[in-house]
Amino acid sequence: MTSNGRVTLVGAGPGDPDLLTVKAHRLLATATLVVHDRLVSPGILALVAPSARRICVGKESGRHSVPQAEINALLVGLAQAGHDVVRLKGGDPFIFGRGGEEALHLAAAGIACEAVPGVTAAAGVCAAAGIPLTHRGLATGVRLITGHAQDDQPLHLDWRALADADCTLVFYMGLGAVRLIADNLIAAGLSPQTPAAAIENGTTARQRRALTTLAGLPAAVRDAALKPPTLLVVGRVVSLAGALLPSTLDEWREAAE
Amino acid sequence: MTSNGRVTLVGAGPGDPDLLTVKAHRLLATATLVVHDRLVSPGILALVAPSARRICVGKESGRHSVPQAEINALLVGLAQAGHDVVRLKGGDPFIFGRGGEEALHLAAAGIACEAVPGVTAAAGVCAAAGIPLTHRGLATGVRLITGHAQDDQPLHLDWRALADADCTLVFYMGLGAVRLIADNLIAAGLSPQTPAAAIENGTTARQRRALTTLAGLPAAVRDAALKPPTLLVVGRVVSLAGALLPSTLDEWREAAE
Repeated sequence: MTSNGRVTLVGAGPGDPDLLTVKAHRLLATATLVVHDRLVSPGILALVAPSARRICVGKESGRHSVPQAEINALLVGLAQAGHDVVRLKGGDPFIFGRGGEEALHLAAAGIACEAVPGVTAAAGVCAAAGIPLTHRGLATGVRLITGHAQDDQPLHLDWRALADADCTLVFYMGLGAVRLIADNLIAAGLSPQTPAAAIENGTTARQRRALTTLAGLPAAVRDAALKPPTLLVVGRVVSLAGALLPSTLDEWREAAE
Repeated sequence: MTSNGRVTLVGAGPGDPDLLTVKAHRLLATATLVVHDRLVSPGILALVAPSARRICVGKESGRHSVPQAEINALLVGLAQAGHDVVRLKGGDPFIFGRGGEEALHLAAAGIACEAVPGVTAAAGVCAAAGIPLTHRGLATGVRLITGHAQDDQPLHLDWRALADADCTLVFYMGLGAVRLIADNLIAAGLSPQTPAAAIENGTTARQRRALTTLAGLPAAVRDAALKPPTLLVVGRVVSLAGALLPSTLDEWREAAE
């Protein structure tokens, strides 16, 4: 009889391997078994030892090739077979990563579980784009929201609560709902001229971006044919994108052409 | 005549040196000049080479030993004198770190500036406490808010917008305003029984915590005599703290005794 292995839920950060935590980097390099989402970047997967077993559970933009219940059962089964598992997720495991569900399932099965936080997409992507998430006089806070409803239900959010001009809004997995998001925020009172950005594959060499207004966001996303993973950022702080890190301005201009 | 140095705004993460990014770790180890806040943990400062010059600008809980304008001028002056400066901030430089203000000031002076994101306190502290920031059926998003008003003005927030039971609230630097926060959220409609936590020095060996309800938060903070840096977390996800990572439950119980 083997004793149970343990599962470590590890945040892979926004995509750039340099933005892994020191702890995540070490865990990946020494792992013997890694269960990962499809969104984890190739540069990060390259850090896993060639001898290690890798299982891709193909989660992408909230749509799972492998249903969440099967992922939960897979993790429990591997740990019960004695494997120590590194469960690698894009960003932070407890921010839209469904890490809480996996941790609960493991706890119920009596399996030791630890969570290693990561740089969430909002922080990583916006640092690279020169957009501070909070800024004196422009935003007293930031709200991270999923733009993807569960079980393919229509997206149901408290739009009145979201339409706060003092708060930066960052939508994860919001590409499919971009028109719904823009229309509802404007209807709830947020100015159509609020600066807004859409950033695809932020922090990686493949990143593409559009800088626009809230009213212009759906057309900008369509014109640039942006694909997941794309982050939507809405708020006055977006106006700083060029001023703050001037080197990014040329990139924005290129993207706009 | 020397040419300008460059300034890198680096997020130090939540406190545990293992939660630095790989990039931040490398920049600290190779830096010749580090300008840091007081909140950066001793374990992280120990990674700076002994030969490097360190300048502490003593920012703590929003109160600055050195006013922000002087920090801005210091960074410009050091870069103009030809120094490459690592500007080290707790958490993420663009989330309540006033990194945007420093970057704008540097850009205006024509000094090259780059931002390196870090694990923000909310993600780091809550991972260690077993609290997912979002969770299916409990929270569709998370809002990060400063509990410290600028220029010692009374804290002015849109409490109606904040009182959204579907959104986890994390207050940074909120200790001094804990009664104001609890009273206003309850008055705006959030249930007094909403689970809530206060976590001091999260992710470090010195961490102390109190697990309670929104109504009980001011008394819990007072009874435990919590001090900055303390994070306040309000939302249904806090109820998972013990269930999710069972090892944390004993710690919570100890803290409650």
